[in-house]
Amino acid sequence: MTDDEKAIRELVAAWMAASLEGNVAKVLSLMTEDVIFMVPGRDPFGREAFAAASRSMEGMRLEGTSDILELQVMGDWAFMRCHIDMTITPPNAREPVRRSGHTLTLLRKGADGRWRLARDANLLAARG
Amino acid sequence: MTDDEKAIRELVAAWMAASLEGNVAKVLSLMTEDVIFMVPGRDPFGREAFAAASRSMEGMRLEGTSDILELQVMGDWAFMRCHIDMTITPPNAREPVRRSGHTLTLLRKGADGRWRLARDANLLAARG
Repeated sequence: MTDDEKAIRELVAAWMAASLEGNVAKVLSLMTEDVIFMVPGRDPFGREAFAAASRSMEGMRLEGTSDILELQVMGDWAFMRCHIDMTITPPNAREPVRRSGHTLTLLRKGADGRWRLARDANLLAARG
Repeated sequence: MTDDEKAIRELVAAWMAASLEGNVAKVLSLMTEDVIFMVPGRDPFGREAFAAASRSMEGMRLEGTSDILELQVMGDWAFMRCHIDMTITPPNAREPVRRSGHTLTLLRKGADGRWRLARDANLLAARG
């Protein structure tokens, strides 16, 4: 495994850990300024909308795993495919929601040598 | 515009033209052997499943447009984001179905100097 691959795997682990903790500031530090998120049924959105959506999930309990199925580094860019499985439990003892599926993600290495998430297509669907 | 960007724009136009014509053999020639397609709600699939799905659409009339919103070349790889708008009219005068949305696509330049589609996340949703 190259240093870049190792750094990207650490980024994915840090992203998941910060997401599960609800640490929005930390997650925002792991994406580029010009990041674009793509999900089914709505227009692509950037970091402000991501932050607003994350903050709206305050009080929910998240559990989940993220497995990297493919990772290719192309200079200062990389792409990966992941499989994600999440369970989101709302407060007040409502039923948990399970979402699972695949992602296709572009990552970029900054001038500071750190990899960040740059483009993300998220195909997760609700599962019974 | 670089030669690579021009070649990729020609690939996108050729892909859409062949799709609208129902020319499955031509579309298959525009993707890599190891291509992976990702759509919401099912597992990623390759060229054989793509071909089978395309052949099952025989007899339908397709119309549509594909606009490249972003294109970045990284050596022998490139990625692009597109917005696609398709109308699919089944035979027997049934109601047309409109699907629109965004894609995130990786492309790869082969040893023969030709660009082909390599990974594709398709977030199109049915629209009223």
